[in-house]
Amino acid sequence: MTNGTDTALRALVLVCTLKASPAESSSQLLGEQVLHELEQLGVTGEVVRVVDHDVRFGVGTDEGDGDAWPGIREKMLASDILVIATPIWLGQPSSVCKLVLERLDAELGETDDQGRMLTEGKVAVVAVVGNEDGAHHVVAEVLQAVNDTGFSVAANAGTYWVGEAMQGVDYLDHDETPEKTATTTESAARHAVHLARLLAAAPYPGPPEG
Amino acid sequence: MTNGTDTALRALVLVCTLKASPAESSSQLLGEQVLHELEQLGVTGEVVRVVDHDVRFGVGTDEGDGDAWPGIREKMLASDILVIATPIWLGQPSSVCKLVLERLDAELGETDDQGRMLTEGKVAVVAVVGNEDGAHHVVAEVLQAVNDTGFSVAANAGTYWVGEAMQGVDYLDHDETPEKTATTTESAARHAVHLARLLAAAPYPGPPEG
Amino acid sequence: MTNGTDTALRALVLVCTLKASPAESSSQLLGEQVLHELEQLGVTGEVVRVVDHDVRFGVGTDEGDGDAWPGIREKMLASDILVIATPIWLGQPSSVCKLVLERLDAELGETDDQGRMLTEGKVAVVAVVGNEDGAHHVVAEVLQAVNDTGFSVAANAGTYWVGEAMQGVDYLDHDETPEKTATTTESAARHAVHLARLLAAAPYPGPPEG
Amino acid sequence: MTNGTDTALRALVLVCTLKASPAESSSQLLGEQVLHELEQLGVTGEVVRVVDHDVRFGVGTDEGDGDAWPGIREKMLASDILVIATPIWLGQPSSVCKLVLERLDAELGETDDQGRMLTEGKVAVVAVVGNEDGAHHVVAEVLQAVNDTGFSVAANAGTYWVGEAMQGVDYLDHDETPEKTATTTESAARHAVHLARLLAAAPYPGPPEG
Repeated sequence: MTNGTDTALRALVLVCTLKASPAESSSQLLGEQVLHELEQLGVTGEVVRVVDHDVRFGVGTDEGDGDAWPGIREKMLASDILVIATPIWLGQPSSVCKLVLERLDAELGETDDQGRMLTEGKVAVVAVVGNEDGAHHVVAEVLQAVNDTGFSVAANAGTYWVGEAMQGVDYLDHDETPEKTATTTESAARHAVHLARLLAAAPYPGPPEG
Repeated sequence: MTNGTDTALRALVLVCTLKASPAESSSQLLGEQVLHELEQLGVTGEVVRVVDHDVRFGVGTDEGDGDAWPGIREKMLASDILVIATPIWLGQPSSVCKLVLERLDAELGETDDQGRMLTEGKVAVVAVVGNEDGAHHVVAEVLQAVNDTGFSVAANAGTYWVGEAMQGVDYLDHDETPEKTATTTESAARHAVHLARLLAAAPYPGPPEG
Repeated sequence: MTNGTDTALRALVLVCTLKASPAESSSQLLGEQVLHELEQLGVTGEVVRVVDHDVRFGVGTDEGDGDAWPGIREKMLASDILVIATPIWLGQPSSVCKLVLERLDAELGETDDQGRMLTEGKVAVVAVVGNEDGAHHVVAEVLQAVNDTGFSVAANAGTYWVGEAMQGVDYLDHDETPEKTATTTESAARHAVHLARLLAAAPYPGPPEG
Repeated sequence: MTNGTDTALRALVLVCTLKASPAESSSQLLGEQVLHELEQLGVTGEVVRVVDHDVRFGVGTDEGDGDAWPGIREKMLASDILVIATPIWLGQPSSVCKLVLERLDAELGETDDQGRMLTEGKVAVVAVVGNEDGAHHVVAEVLQAVNDTGFSVAANAGTYWVGEAMQGVDYLDHDETPEKTATTTESAARHAVHLARLLAAAPYPGPPEG
């Protein structure tokens, strides 16, 4: 699962668009770009578009009855880096993103024999797109939620694109990736890999014995 | 739909718990209490537990294929007061609440012959419960989203209960309604009814002719 | 103070830029544009640039020792419409905006003989500018805070401009007001005036006698 | 400045209460408790109560004219761990906290010869207190802002205490530290020290040559 410096790190990109495949998705595009940057640094990984799977509302690890979360959770637990890629709606994270964060809330109750969450040592990256406004707030909501649930956050862990106020251009409408976003994606990936490698080699110590 | 002062106002309470009926729900309890206070003031209304219905992810008025939103939307359009009752998860509104707000986003594209959204003249109330922390932020997220989509907000439009930090008491564990929450629920309802009556009798003017 | 429909309404625009006069300020420009739209509708008012005055940190109505808030508070209490105009820093409201909201927090303890806050019946508008991203969240933070402290909120109470992600254009760099922002400013003003007139003519009822 | 594993790490606690010394302050108390836990792990540090110093509004490293920020900034640059300790007002970070975050914004323009911010490699912790509600959101606002400005965030980087909804108990009213908060403070400190040590020994790599 976690890896020493010689082993390849793994990443999981959870795309939180509201639209099922095969519809085009700006957040999927940005999520894939983050994965591409991670791959340049030796990470292997995969993209899961959450809404294509029957993930249930809830705050348990398995809500039963065909819930698709346990399968996704297994991939998350096998990864060193979790990328949350979400669109912005009304200036806020998507409901699918919130659904994912709520499912991660279950990790608060899942600890190893040293009292550490299973997510500890994993590193989170946030990728946000909208046609206007909201990226910083979405980053805030996601970082707080994933940090609450055990993930670490490398410097400048958010990458994003939004257009000018009240305009209708989408990220995927661009012929070329906007340069500032490309640079930010590269550095978010570089930092995350560095941090994930350090934490894979030297896990957080558990709580002192009481 | 909207009413003069002589006609009874209507309210719709959308309960955004993650748990389907018949599970007990603190947010449903608080939502019902808001409706009870509204009824004391002559309002009639109903409670819809969103997760009991097949509401689809999306930002259209009808996402097709058995989407339950159009039926709920009809009730919303027939109401003067919309109450959003939501639990708190990770200090944030529930994913079901976000799903509802995203569906309301469709109203930005639905205007009458004077260019007014169909939601204009309607008044929103927010009711929030969690076992700890997060109510003010949830109120912020919901007020901004419903105000963006056309709703007006009376003074002190949020009512809530949360327990002490990192404790596990639920709102529905109380034998008696916490007094401050009861008072706040009463005033949120009283203010909303006053504002809804004013706006029913005197709708917002549309944009000036261009 | 509050006015019947025949009397002119008053507005106060609090500009929350970090920069003292005479530095140019995008938030001051947008605040002035809101006031201009209000004036078209018969409202009289004034703009106060908060950082030009010695407003102290605190949550009282008067923090003493030359605190400039009591003078500004007097203007606020004499107004029917309060416009909070703020820049965005790091995707969030400015510290000066937060200082103003904290001073409004004192109003929770100031009630008339019917138990109503002195701010009740007043209407709030939010005007937000940044060179990129953050407007919706700033609107959320401000609306929640002013609604907590007694203000009502008309439909679509926020107006804003932000540029494309990670670009450096300022609002005041535009030769012409971006059209969508101009339209939004006009409707925020029109709605606020309508609501303020209704509430001036028909104040919220106080709490029932206990 | 930054240290290898053999050298003691340094911490700076910035207390963002609105009240100047010698008034009692819950956020100062929690900030001191974080420092105490850090000291148990070999870190040395100091507490600065920001409002006791003449820190100016602005987004530069030095706003001139007696601005006290450059002195505080020097301490920050000499530290490996930055603790932001803030009260909650209206469910949001204090204005003094926002002022500090805005001053950190200046670091976006200050890079070393490898294009890295001077804050890179530093680790942030957030400590939040209020008499009710708001801690998660304050953590979100602060984490996003410090992460934007170069800080890394260890697992579970926020510690907090808030009371039950609409009650008036303060953190410093407790005879004993609430146990859950004490545990959370200990783990936030332990994780931060671990991460700061790793990053001191192995700094983030700079951007690839273009």
